[in-house]
Amino acid sequence: MRAEGFGLELIASDGVARTARMTTPHGVVETPAFMPVATFGAVRGISAAELAEAGAQILLSNTYHLHERPGEQTIEQLGGLHGFTGWTGPWLTDSGGYQVTSLADRARLDEDGVVFTSPLDGRRRSLTPEIAIQIQEALGSDIAMVLDQCIPIEKESDGRTEEKALESAMERTLRWADRSRRVRRRESQAVFAIVQGGVSEALRRRSAEGTAELDFDGHAHGGLGLGESRDERRQAVAVANAALPADRPRYLMGLGRPLDLLDGVAAGIDLFDCVVPTRNGRHGLLFTSEGTLALRNAAFERDEGPIDPSCACPACQRHSRAYLRHLIRGGEALGARLASLHNLTYYLNLLARARRAIETGTLAALHAEIEGLATHRI
Amino acid sequence: MRAEGFGLELIASDGVARTARMTTPHGVVETPAFMPVATFGAVRGISAAELAEAGAQILLSNTYHLHERPGEQTIEQLGGLHGFTGWTGPWLTDSGGYQVTSLADRARLDEDGVVFTSPLDGRRRSLTPEIAIQIQEALGSDIAMVLDQCIPIEKESDGRTEEKALESAMERTLRWADRSRRVRRRESQAVFAIVQGGVSEALRRRSAEGTAELDFDGHAHGGLGLGESRDERRQAVAVANAALPADRPRYLMGLGRPLDLLDGVAAGIDLFDCVVPTRNGRHGLLFTSEGTLALRNAAFERDEGPIDPSCACPACQRHSRAYLRHLIRGGEALGARLASLHNLTYYLNLLARARRAIETGTLAALHAEIEGLATHRI
Repeated sequence: MRAEGFGLELIASDGVARTARMTTPHGVVETPAFMPVATFGAVRGISAAELAEAGAQILLSNTYHLHERPGEQTIEQLGGLHGFTGWTGPWLTDSGGYQVTSLADRARLDEDGVVFTSPLDGRRRSLTPEIAIQIQEALGSDIAMVLDQCIPIEKESDGRTEEKALESAMERTLRWADRSRRVRRRESQAVFAIVQGGVSEALRRRSAEGTAELDFDGHAHGGLGLGESRDERRQAVAVANAALPADRPRYLMGLGRPLDLLDGVAAGIDLFDCVVPTRNGRHGLLFTSEGTLALRNAAFERDEGPIDPSCACPACQRHSRAYLRHLIRGGEALGARLASLHNLTYYLNLLARARRAIETGTLAALHAEIEGLATHRI
Repeated sequence: MRAEGFGLELIASDGVARTARMTTPHGVVETPAFMPVATFGAVRGISAAELAEAGAQILLSNTYHLHERPGEQTIEQLGGLHGFTGWTGPWLTDSGGYQVTSLADRARLDEDGVVFTSPLDGRRRSLTPEIAIQIQEALGSDIAMVLDQCIPIEKESDGRTEEKALESAMERTLRWADRSRRVRRRESQAVFAIVQGGVSEALRRRSAEGTAELDFDGHAHGGLGLGESRDERRQAVAVANAALPADRPRYLMGLGRPLDLLDGVAAGIDLFDCVVPTRNGRHGLLFTSEGTLALRNAAFERDEGPIDPSCACPACQRHSRAYLRHLIRGGEALGARLASLHNLTYYLNLLARARRAIETGTLAALHAEIEGLATHRI
């Protein structure tokens, strides 16, 4: 089964990078695209209107959080994520697996799925590939993710044990993807499978090939951004992308910093999500066209200039670094809000620039520019 | 000395209630008016544009907080509160006295002023009537308040001791007002003196008469909302108002709930401030045209209706009770923001209705309506 009303139309390419139009039941997404993270159905402190104004086209929400509160039945009855939240554009939901294993109490994983204790009510619950699909069908997202098993990269471990554990998790992820495929019922919802295998080229290739055979609507790279080097990550993505069908979206999960995004774009990735822009914003770490700005720095105490003179966000248009620094230091909610919105605007603009660069064959120059900024502190 | 570019032009009255145009160097305020509280130069989580859209005309900021961070010199150098914050309309600042005695460590008060230990850097500082004026002149507010001594109402104390302490604080407040008057230099800044005297009619009258003789730009009622009954409060305000010149603004400090505002309006008050709308909003207690709504209540879990069908704020126009309840329960910043903005909109609309009611001689009907709602829970 493939989803109805969902597809990818390529516009241009530059090397293996490509820009495309991804059609979903709730609107078109120009890719490569960044998806702001709306964990509980809202991006921390920021309204749907502000996100749209900043250039967001699609949001990501966390299935585990919504399952715990308010529960998928409540959201389904209130019109799914689109009716419930006020963001009527496309939604992607994760499977909940990563959150369950990292947030829930006493999560235990076996072939069937994950059994865990809810921190909310202390009850034991289970998350299986089938349940993950059912919850996401109730949430009504445009893109659902399969449940996968992700092994954190253990730098210190014996290499052979690690490879065995990675292989076992990768093979299980394939079996879980197959189970997910068989239970999906919602025709208007795309489902993406997830490539695993750590940074082993052989495992990544085998995972991508096995995943491709299952005929999903799109594919994701999982288990990255967990301590591997930049080269390892780029290699892992490249190997898998070569084995994945080019006519379907590719999503690099949970990454990352601006350079990670450009690395991904250059490798042919279409979708990104990360909490870095909002989390860093709340802490006063701001992305600008001249590098990273640590707003708590005393140097900005009386700085009347905007965060970034080339930015059109409300923070840069209306407020000085001095005022925003004051708000962030005082823990004022308006500071976190304005700084997060600034960083999201930076990310969304960066992807818009990447799309134009691919169309004009100038992606390498943009990539080099961001590489030059990566370690630059204002 | 009286401030230049500051004045009150009466438009209409209904009993002793009046509606007027208060001119300040940064714009006209139609009174009676509610001033949202922007403690650190920002209303929690809400932008200046949203405040203006909701009908705010003037904001209040807390001198003690700004003195501690970022310091009045920084704000002065950055164009005062108007240049620093992005709210370019009128500002009122308090004297810092109430905050120092309630928030600072080891505050000690004598005839000279207050000596306290800053919780920020552990240093001893002092706040005198002269320093309070100097700080506010640096902040550049349109209306500054004199330092006063406020005695909390002690329900349990021996009545005679209390009266003595109240009288002593009231007399000291008069002496401090006189000192404040002598040091003010900023011609474009109005200064308001503060009536004290607890709920003793004799002390309130003496305080108001003594204050009136000092020829300030406006007058405030202090030391209320601290445990006295509604009748005691109304009587205290009425007695003082009768002794204050009618051609200058009257400000009821720190109060309160919607009925407190209507009681004040009916007694001839022109200005109000209170943290109730924003604080209650953050906790999910919402004011509506049908009474108070406790949004955390399970009854609203799947309620698709707006908080208040007759409200035009962004929360009511775009979101359901179910979604806002979900955000508030999850501690999502967007929930606090939208709920606070709703409550502020309610307060600002209530005062707009009061102004129209005074013009049309129908204030008693509005007062009765709000009295009927005061204990009503949806």
